[in-house]
Amino acid sequence: MKIERLAEGISLKRSVDAGTADQRKAVQDIIYDVRKSGNAALHNYTERFDGVSLEELLVSEQEIEEATAALTVEQLAIIQEAADNIRLFHEKQIRNSWITTDDTGTMLGQKLTPLDAVGVYVPGGTAAYPSSVLMNTMPAKAAGVERIVMVSPPGKDGKLTPAVLAAAKIAGVTEIYKVGGAQAIAALAYGTETIVKVDKIVGPGNIYVALAKREVFGDVAIDMIAGPSEIAVLADDSAIASEVAADLLSQAEHDARACSVLVTTSMELAEEVSAEVNKQVALLPRRDIAAASINDYGRIVVCENMVEAVGAINELAPEHLEIVTYNSLEVMAKIRHAGAIFIGRFSSEPVGDYFAGPNHVLPTNGTARFSSPLNVDDFQKKSSIIMYSETAFRQNAEKIAAFARMEGLEAHARAIESRGANKLGK
Amino acid sequence: MKIERLAEGISLKRSVDAGTADQRKAVQDIIYDVRKSGNAALHNYTERFDGVSLEELLVSEQEIEEATAALTVEQLAIIQEAADNIRLFHEKQIRNSWITTDDTGTMLGQKLTPLDAVGVYVPGGTAAYPSSVLMNTMPAKAAGVERIVMVSPPGKDGKLTPAVLAAAKIAGVTEIYKVGGAQAIAALAYGTETIVKVDKIVGPGNIYVALAKREVFGDVAIDMIAGPSEIAVLADDSAIASEVAADLLSQAEHDARACSVLVTTSMELAEEVSAEVNKQVALLPRRDIAAASINDYGRIVVCENMVEAVGAINELAPEHLEIVTYNSLEVMAKIRHAGAIFIGRFSSEPVGDYFAGPNHVLPTNGTARFSSPLNVDDFQKKSSIIMYSETAFRQNAEKIAAFARMEGLEAHARAIESRGANKLGK
Repeated sequence: MKIERLAEGISLKRSVDAGTADQRKAVQDIIYDVRKSGNAALHNYTERFDGVSLEELLVSEQEIEEATAALTVEQLAIIQEAADNIRLFHEKQIRNSWITTDDTGTMLGQKLTPLDAVGVYVPGGTAAYPSSVLMNTMPAKAAGVERIVMVSPPGKDGKLTPAVLAAAKIAGVTEIYKVGGAQAIAALAYGTETIVKVDKIVGPGNIYVALAKREVFGDVAIDMIAGPSEIAVLADDSAIASEVAADLLSQAEHDARACSVLVTTSMELAEEVSAEVNKQVALLPRRDIAAASINDYGRIVVCENMVEAVGAINELAPEHLEIVTYNSLEVMAKIRHAGAIFIGRFSSEPVGDYFAGPNHVLPTNGTARFSSPLNVDDFQKKSSIIMYSETAFRQNAEKIAAFARMEGLEAHARAIESRGANKLGK
Repeated sequence: MKIERLAEGISLKRSVDAGTADQRKAVQDIIYDVRKSGNAALHNYTERFDGVSLEELLVSEQEIEEATAALTVEQLAIIQEAADNIRLFHEKQIRNSWITTDDTGTMLGQKLTPLDAVGVYVPGGTAAYPSSVLMNTMPAKAAGVERIVMVSPPGKDGKLTPAVLAAAKIAGVTEIYKVGGAQAIAALAYGTETIVKVDKIVGPGNIYVALAKREVFGDVAIDMIAGPSEIAVLADDSAIASEVAADLLSQAEHDARACSVLVTTSMELAEEVSAEVNKQVALLPRRDIAAASINDYGRIVVCENMVEAVGAINELAPEHLEIVTYNSLEVMAKIRHAGAIFIGRFSSEPVGDYFAGPNHVLPTNGTARFSSPLNVDDFQKKSSIIMYSETAFRQNAEKIAAFARMEGLEAHARAIESRGANKLGK
């Protein structure tokens, strides 16, 4: 890995695929077709894109049982334990409706209600990750969402990956359909004869899925359009180079466009990590992907001091941030922008990918400046509660009407004044 | 107003302007131009669209003082009192960072951080509402956002409306620029020589503003794309027809495409409200707009009973909902989808538009199914905190590595196992 000194600002090379005009057109056509032809369109596209002709889109109870049986007891136990940790962390986020009252008898507040129905997209093939099923489903479950609909493209054998189905069962998915791509997003957003539409769609996918989510945004809610994975390690000379290198590579193996960055105050560490990355990458099964990612997007940036280093991290707003320094909690306090912050050498990033409990669906591409990890708030919406007492009304009616007239909205003023003509009730 | 019996489902006619292909192209061109030419582009478009050539985009302290002086003491006091109420309600929503610890010394949690900078769009002309300045600014202020940038198109005299400037000062806006339209959104999203870019853009606007927000979405956060205003009144025979009619008209006067609906269990009330609306609308200054709205989008729907009526409301997911019934709190408990719920006859909708404290920026067009009123959460983002102790790490390392291998991500497993080679620290 190349080592550089921090220049004026740290402008990170990142790659977000915005899609071509042709891809956008293709996605619009698919959505139009699904809205028009429903299931027939889903079956057609599944034949065309996934190379399989299905009798039924819905995954049967028997298929789920078979999938569960295909996993070892140990594998099921690990998925279950991860699910329990994720449930626990997300249940702590559940918020209650609240009100305030005052001595006039006025009541103001927020009523919190879970969404009715959520769709979870799970990619197929090698990207069919059970952890992704857990991370996208369980915040919705914790929020109290009753209907959770999973969609995923079938393999050529017409089946979904066993680990994905087993995770779906453990996570509490209520319906699973074998359909993927833009057609699955269209079905979730607008409904077909068998798939009842949902209120929000979450989960990662390829460029067609991302473009389809962007198209349906507004008609339903979506989570975010995720870019390639990113890790920044903020380290001083207390860090161990082999561990830092291994963590950088754990992101690099995801995607040739993944972005792994070390920001450090130690030139010695920088040099050691650079050498370690070169050594370790050669031994990885996915070394082609990891090496391409490190070459194109990997960076080691050496800073004069920790203040400068923290400034660089806040400028990056990385998806994952590891802090491996003396006084790492003090350093953490100064971080304003990061999706997830891993503190200390035992908080290796994969700890959070699978197991600890916090979500692995995180803001990429600098959007940690304004976005949050997927969380329970994403599945609970608020309604304002306004109950004015007669006393409060009479105290303030004149002022409210005057405000309305200041804005030139006479009917608003008269709505207030219409209460003057009547005394208490009928 | 026409009266109808509830049919199978209540499909509401709503109108959302998605923009034409020409409008989208125009907006894309403007954004491109602002990104390329910065301030020069802003000055050009302001001359072209607002008909005024400005020396300075930034509103001066003197202009703000003059605006304040142009309002009466009473007007300023009303804006101040509304602002205080809004501040109070939103400050109750502020959330703290939180952690959980367990007996292994593991720490998990969420770190909450306000956004660094927020842009508030305020329309010009007759839609330049001081209440809109308060409602869009004060949740950001309550969240702790330090930089709040207001933009608004100048009149032909090169000035902004005094009430808007006075409200901006009261609300705590930190910078105000005289620029509107898609060019203002581009400047907020990407920055120019004088306007430093922000992280999130909120506030209503015309179709060009809405399309521009959609274009920049992802590079910055946006609030929502609002449709025309809506009110649903859920009433039984305890309601007073003249009041219900006045409230329906208070939304109708906003926009010829605004949507006012009465859902009631009382045919008598339905008939009285219909007559009252016809009577009152004729007396309104904005009667042309209100009458068009009532004719095209107004409805009175009579239901068999309250269960049916509540079902209809949940299907509508209205922006504003008034409940004027016996046991109105009991009825409220059954509402799942509404932006703001006004309870009882003294909670006329304009009470919330200006004064009570809850936000008037609300989800329209059925998006209350999955969206919330503008609130403090929109301006505070979360970072996950993961600090695994060595004990927790050693207890779980094997399981985490096994999970990674189940997903075919060997580098993830090795990142975990890299910690095995070293004992405690260096």
